Amino acid sequence: MTLRPTLLACALALSSVSATAQQPAKPLGTQQILDASPAEHWRTLDPENTLYMELDRGRVIIELAPGFAPRHVDNIRTLARGHFWDGLSIYRSQDNFVVQFGDADAGEPGAKSQGAALAKLPAEFTRDSKDLAFTQLPDVDGWAPEVGLVEGFAAARDPKANKAWLTHCYGVLGAGRDTAPDSSNGSELYVVTGQSPRQLDRNITSVGRVVKGMELLSTIQRGPEPMGFYEKPELRTAIKSIRLASELPESERTALELLRPDSPTFTAATESRRNRRDGWYVQPAGHIDICNVPLPVRVPES
Amino acid sequence: MTLRPTLLACALALSSVSATAQQPAKPLGTQQILDASPAEHWRTLDPENTLYMELDRGRVIIELAPGFAPRHVDNIRTLARGHFWDGLSIYRSQDNFVVQFGDADAGEPGAKSQGAALAKLPAEFTRDSKDLAFTQLPDVDGWAPEVGLVEGFAAARDPKANKAWLTHCYGVLGAGRDTAPDSSNGSELYVVTGQSPRQLDRNITSVGRVVKGMELLSTIQRGPEPMGFYEKPELRTAIKSIRLASELPESERTALELLRPDSPTFTAATESRRNRRDGWYVQPAGHIDICNVPLPVRVPES
Repeated sequence: MTLRPTLLACALALSSVSATAQQPAKPLGTQQILDASPAEHWRTLDPENTLYMELDRGRVIIELAPGFAPRHVDNIRTLARGHFWDGLSIYRSQDNFVVQFGDADAGEPGAKSQGAALAKLPAEFTRDSKDLAFTQLPDVDGWAPEVGLVEGFAAARDPKANKAWLTHCYGVLGAGRDTAPDSSNGSELYVVTGQSPRQLDRNITSVGRVVKGMELLSTIQRGPEPMGFYEKPELRTAIKSIRLASELPESERTALELLRPDSPTFTAATESRRNRRDGWYVQPAGHIDICNVPLPVRVPES
Repeated sequence: MTLRPTLLACALALSSVSATAQQPAKPLGTQQILDASPAEHWRTLDPENTLYMELDRGRVIIELAPGFAPRHVDNIRTLARGHFWDGLSIYRSQDNFVVQFGDADAGEPGAKSQGAALAKLPAEFTRDSKDLAFTQLPDVDGWAPEVGLVEGFAAARDPKANKAWLTHCYGVLGAGRDTAPDSSNGSELYVVTGQSPRQLDRNITSVGRVVKGMELLSTIQRGPEPMGFYEKPELRTAIKSIRLASELPESERTALELLRPDSPTFTAATESRRNRRDGWYVQPAGHIDICNVPLPVRVPES
């Protein structure tokens, strides 16, 4: 690779690493902090909270958030076990917003049976934050009184109302709904593929986030209709299957490790992004947005 | 289209419109506000400040920001007139970050001549904000003391330092640089395709933004290398040409109108997104991020 692109890349990239052997006083970059972290700062996914969405181009891995949306996650598990999404599609891709998938014929005569899943659920826009382990960030947020991390998810909290919720960041999985707040049941889902649409916070039930394979969703051709729908069904992206990891034999699961947000490594990694000191930056920001906080995921060495 | 997707779409979409004939008291949606706007609230692009990037899949239209980066924009005009980018490529696409284009061989023996362009320019990270027309937003921002609009661009301002700069939002065009702050000359450029990387503000020279055709850049396959580079040159996206609109006969230009940020329509449209009152939202945000502010662009009726 060439000089200019490589150096820009180093400066811009998540995995930016500066040489430290020669310059021991230099602050560590994010990747160095992660590389130096002890094993106990990492966690693995619970197979009962992990969805594998299989596309022709590969596997998208989603971590579900039962702590935030227990009823929806239960229903999604039922839908996955019933193979509801198999053969359905991603039927919407709106630039700088979301991809949406499920049954393009929902509500129509040709709609697919949802099997044992519940047709109706209560809205789960927020959860009680009393006694909730919330790793608060010191950074100001315009959308919420407080932001931080809960169970590996970017989240917000209103201490006066005693409520917490998932923040609509890149990669968040939400449950589509109609006008009635309680009209989602987890069968129609969307993933955020653009600038964080935080206006959706507390207005829709968030059920998890993509932890691997986002590039398979974010590059899907945008639909030509105003909201990203495809006029022609053949432009939709086929879903081969969506399964809980627990349904697959272990040999077919993807091993992943996720950094624990309550670990010192997480605090140090976040600070390394809040104030970049790698030599390229002339003006450290002194701030990080909850949707820019890195949530590192790695494939463990076998 | 079916019930559930359509209704979710209405609620989620930029172009969300509620029926008003039956409910005259309902606040107007963003699209209705735009539809009702007088012609003088819109402006056209200056052909000398407009770049057409021609890809096999279509045309990407960029508005340059000479008010923020006069030296870089001058050099970019020279590079475009010299057909510098013709036959070069988009050689990097990093998920949730940027696409980058120019000469993948820059700095190498095979590098393309930059013709009459200057090899070296001063950094243009900020501009003097004294006497600058700045349409300030009331919304808090964690990255800057003040945010608002300048000449159609999302921007930030530090009134104490008397400085303003473009904010790194989705679609912003920046000039790649090496470690030295003055090492960009506008030949290597990037466009933001993910969550706003505001940490780059005041650290790199922003030179404009994409006003049409973002979906042609955002869907480019991500590079497999850690920072989105392609190991194999054949995976790069070829650039057929980059031209100033002023170089093309008028019949080959794309007519566009952009909403003036200092117009009452802009204020109303922004407020309609800050506090959504279309019946779907149960919790208006009471806030909007500078990178979520709509910057409407339309093709005028012929």
